[in-house]
Amino acid sequence: MTVTDIATRTYNHNFRLDPIVRSLLDTDFYKLLMLQMIRHLYPQVQATFGLINRSTHIRLADTIDEDELRAQLDHARTVRFTKKELIWLAGNSFAGQERMFAPDFLEWLADFQLPEYELRRVDGQFDLRFAGPWMMTTMWEIPALSVINELRSRAAMRDMGRFTLDILYARAKSKLWDKVERLRALPDLALSDFGTRRRHGFLWQRWCVEALKEGLGDRFIGTSNVLLAMDSDLEAIGTNAHELPMVLAALADTDEALRAAPYRVLEDWRRHYAGNLLIALPDAFGTKAFLAGAPDWLADWTGFRPDSAPPIEAGEQIIRWWQQRGRDPQGKLLIFSDGMDVESIEATYRHFHGRVRMSFGWGTNLTNDFEGCAPGGTTGLDPMSLVVKVIEANGRPAVKLSDNPAKATGDAAEIARYRRVFGQAGGRGAS
Amino acid sequence: MTVTDIATRTYNHNFRLDPIVRSLLDTDFYKLLMLQMIRHLYPQVQATFGLINRSTHIRLADTIDEDELRAQLDHARTVRFTKKELIWLAGNSFAGQERMFAPDFLEWLADFQLPEYELRRVDGQFDLRFAGPWMMTTMWEIPALSVINELRSRAAMRDMGRFTLDILYARAKSKLWDKVERLRALPDLALSDFGTRRRHGFLWQRWCVEALKEGLGDRFIGTSNVLLAMDSDLEAIGTNAHELPMVLAALADTDEALRAAPYRVLEDWRRHYAGNLLIALPDAFGTKAFLAGAPDWLADWTGFRPDSAPPIEAGEQIIRWWQQRGRDPQGKLLIFSDGMDVESIEATYRHFHGRVRMSFGWGTNLTNDFEGCAPGGTTGLDPMSLVVKVIEANGRPAVKLSDNPAKATGDAAEIARYRRVFGQAGGRGAS
Repeated sequence: MTVTDIATRTYNHNFRLDPIVRSLLDTDFYKLLMLQMIRHLYPQVQATFGLINRSTHIRLADTIDEDELRAQLDHARTVRFTKKELIWLAGNSFAGQERMFAPDFLEWLADFQLPEYELRRVDGQFDLRFAGPWMMTTMWEIPALSVINELRSRAAMRDMGRFTLDILYARAKSKLWDKVERLRALPDLALSDFGTRRRHGFLWQRWCVEALKEGLGDRFIGTSNVLLAMDSDLEAIGTNAHELPMVLAALADTDEALRAAPYRVLEDWRRHYAGNLLIALPDAFGTKAFLAGAPDWLADWTGFRPDSAPPIEAGEQIIRWWQQRGRDPQGKLLIFSDGMDVESIEATYRHFHGRVRMSFGWGTNLTNDFEGCAPGGTTGLDPMSLVVKVIEANGRPAVKLSDNPAKATGDAAEIARYRRVFGQAGGRGAS
Repeated sequence: MTVTDIATRTYNHNFRLDPIVRSLLDTDFYKLLMLQMIRHLYPQVQATFGLINRSTHIRLADTIDEDELRAQLDHARTVRFTKKELIWLAGNSFAGQERMFAPDFLEWLADFQLPEYELRRVDGQFDLRFAGPWMMTTMWEIPALSVINELRSRAAMRDMGRFTLDILYARAKSKLWDKVERLRALPDLALSDFGTRRRHGFLWQRWCVEALKEGLGDRFIGTSNVLLAMDSDLEAIGTNAHELPMVLAALADTDEALRAAPYRVLEDWRRHYAGNLLIALPDAFGTKAFLAGAPDWLADWTGFRPDSAPPIEAGEQIIRWWQQRGRDPQGKLLIFSDGMDVESIEATYRHFHGRVRMSFGWGTNLTNDFEGCAPGGTTGLDPMSLVVKVIEANGRPAVKLSDNPAKATGDAAEIARYRRVFGQAGGRGAS
C-alpha cells in the first residue's frame, strides 16, 4: 500500500510563503533583558537601527529578491507573543533567578508588534532601517538578520537537486559532529549556542542545538535563542550588547558625559539584574580605555564578554586588570563569543584553564559552517559579516569603535571625536 | 497546525515485521540467467546450498535472533513474482538483447516460490541449508544473504538513539559521496553495483545506487539488483557464477569428466546466451589450470571476470593468454568484482587503461562501508565474509578451489582430488 498524506501534498502544491520568523521568541535572550530595561528607563528615546553588510563583495540585493524579503519582513510583523510563550517567560527561571521579567513588562509584551521598516535597494545592497522608539526598534535586530541570512541560503540552494541537498546536509552534519567529538575532549568546557543571527536557517540551527545537547551533555550550557531554549528545556543565555553604551554615548551632551556613558549604562544594568547577569562588554569604544577608566565596583562583577579582540590577548588584558584591582581571577568569568570555532575554543580553553572560569558563545561557525559541503561547490553558502546596528539615537549619530578597527561603525566625524575621548588605539594591546 | 498522518502512526504502533525481501526481483541478475539455463538443461539435478560464514569470529547466532531470522525467511517464502515484474522481464532488453527470457520460463516463474529451508544453531553459528531441485534452491542465495546481513545491521543499531542514527547515515552518505567524487576523475570508468548480497540494508543499497546514478552519470553502467534496475531504469548487470562449474564438476564421474566440466558449462552457456553475456569465470578451480586447458573458442568470448586473484595480477595473466592465442586484448573485456574499493579501482583502471576494456563490479565497499561512521564506534556494522555456496549436487560433495586459498570450500578429500586434477597452486601466479 502506498501511503501519501493527500492533504499535506495538496497544501504543498499551493505553497506560498515559508515563514522564517514564526515566533517573537526566535530571538536572542539578551534582547529581552535589554528591552525590559530600555522600556523602564528610556521609553522616550528614539533609536534607528540599520543593516550593515561588512562583506561588501556580496551584493545582497542581487541575490535576494526584494519582494521575498518584504514578504518575510511583513510576515514577521504579523507575529505576536503567544500566551504559552508569555506564561513560560513568567514562570521559567533565568540565570538561576525566578520572576526575571516583571508582570507589567510581560503585559506590555502581549501587544508587542515589530514596528515598520524602510527598505531600499542601493547599488546592489539593501538599505534596511528601523526607525522609532528604541523599545520597539531594538527588537528587529535578530529577526532581520535571520531573515536575510536564511533568504540568502535559500537562494544559494534554489537550483540544487534533491540529491545534492541530501549530500549537502549529510556533510554538514558529519562536519559538525566531528567538531562535537573534538570538543568532548575538553572536560570543563562550558559552551552555548550564539548562532541565531548568522544561522543558515532555523531548522538547521535547531539541529545544531540538538547535536550539542546530545553530544556535549552538561558541557552544553544553553542557547541564546529563547524559542529553542523553551522548546528544548535549555538555559536561555545572554546578558547585554553594544547598543546600550552606543545609545547612551550618542545621547551624551559633552565629552565628559560621553566618557562616563559606558559606565552609566552598567549602573543602570546592576539596578535591574544581578549575579550571572553582571557581565560587562568592555569593547564598545576600546577595551583599553574602558578598563583604565572603570569604577572599582565593576571589578566585583561576575565577568566580562570581550567581543572583538583576539580571545587570548583580551583575556590576559582583563585578568591583569582584575589583579591590579586586587581581585582573584579564578572566581571570575570570561565569555568568549567573537568568531569562535573549534581551534580557537581549544586554544583559549587550554590557555586559561585553571586561571579563570570560561564560557564560550559559539555563533557563525556553529550554525552556518557549510564550507566544502556543497557538491560542485558554491560560495553562496559562505557566511557573511552582516549586522544590524543602532545608527542614530534621538537624531544623533551612534558610534562603535570596537577593538577591531574593521568593526567600527558610525559617522566619520563622530568616530574621530570618540577616538579623541576614548583613545586612538581602539583599545587593542595590553600595554 | 500540527499535521500527523494518524493512520500511519497507528499502524506503526502495531508494527510486527519489517520484511527484508519484498520482491523476488530483489536478487542478482545472474541468478535469473543461470536459472533459465539450469531449468532447461538440468531440471532433475538436486543441489543443496549452505550458508558459510568465513568471518568465524562473528558468532552470528548470538547476534541475530533465530525467531526473527525464521520470520524473515518465512516471509520471503510468501513472496511471488508480480505481474508487473514478469511483464518487465518479458518486455525489457538485457545486455542489448530483446526477449532474453523465454515465454515458458516466465510462465514457470509466475508460480515460483522459494523452497523450504533447514535452520539449526551450531556453536554460535547458523547452519542454514536449502536442499531440493537445483532450479529451486539456487534462488535462495541472494535473499538468504541479504536477510542475514540486514538482520545483523539491525541488531547493531537496535540500541542507537534517533540522533546517533542520524549521524551514522550522514557520515556514511558523506563517505560514499567522497568516493563518488574520486571516481569521477576516471573518464572512461564503467562501474556497476554488485552489492546486493553484502548490503547494510535494502534502503541503503537503493540510496547508494541513486548516488552512483547521480554522481557518475554514464560511468555508472547499472546494477546487479534486478528490482533496483527495474525501478530506476538502469541496466541489469550479470552473467554467471561459480555454482555452474561447481555443480557440473560434482556430477562428473571420472577425473577426465571433472577436468572437462568447467568448459562443458561454458558450452552450455554459449548455446543459451551471446554477446556481452559471454563472460567466463576462470577461477572456480584455479585460473592457471583453467586457462591452460581452455579450448580455443573461449578466446573469442567477450571477456573474463577474474573473481579471487588480485586484479592486476589476474588481468595480466588473462591478457597474456589472449596474446598467446593471437587475440587482441584491446577489444576484450575484464570485469573486476572481488572486494574492490576506490583505491583498487583507481589502481586497476590506471594500470590497464588503453590496453583492455574494463568494468568494475563494486560490492561490499559500496553498499556496506560504515567504518568510522557510528558515533562511539561499533564492530557490529563491519562487513563480514558471508556466502551461500552449493555444497552438494545429486548427493555428491561440491568443491571450490578459487585463486584465493581462503575461499576454498568443500569436503577435504574432494578438495585434495580437485587439486590433483586442476593443479596444486590454486591457479595463483602468472608463470
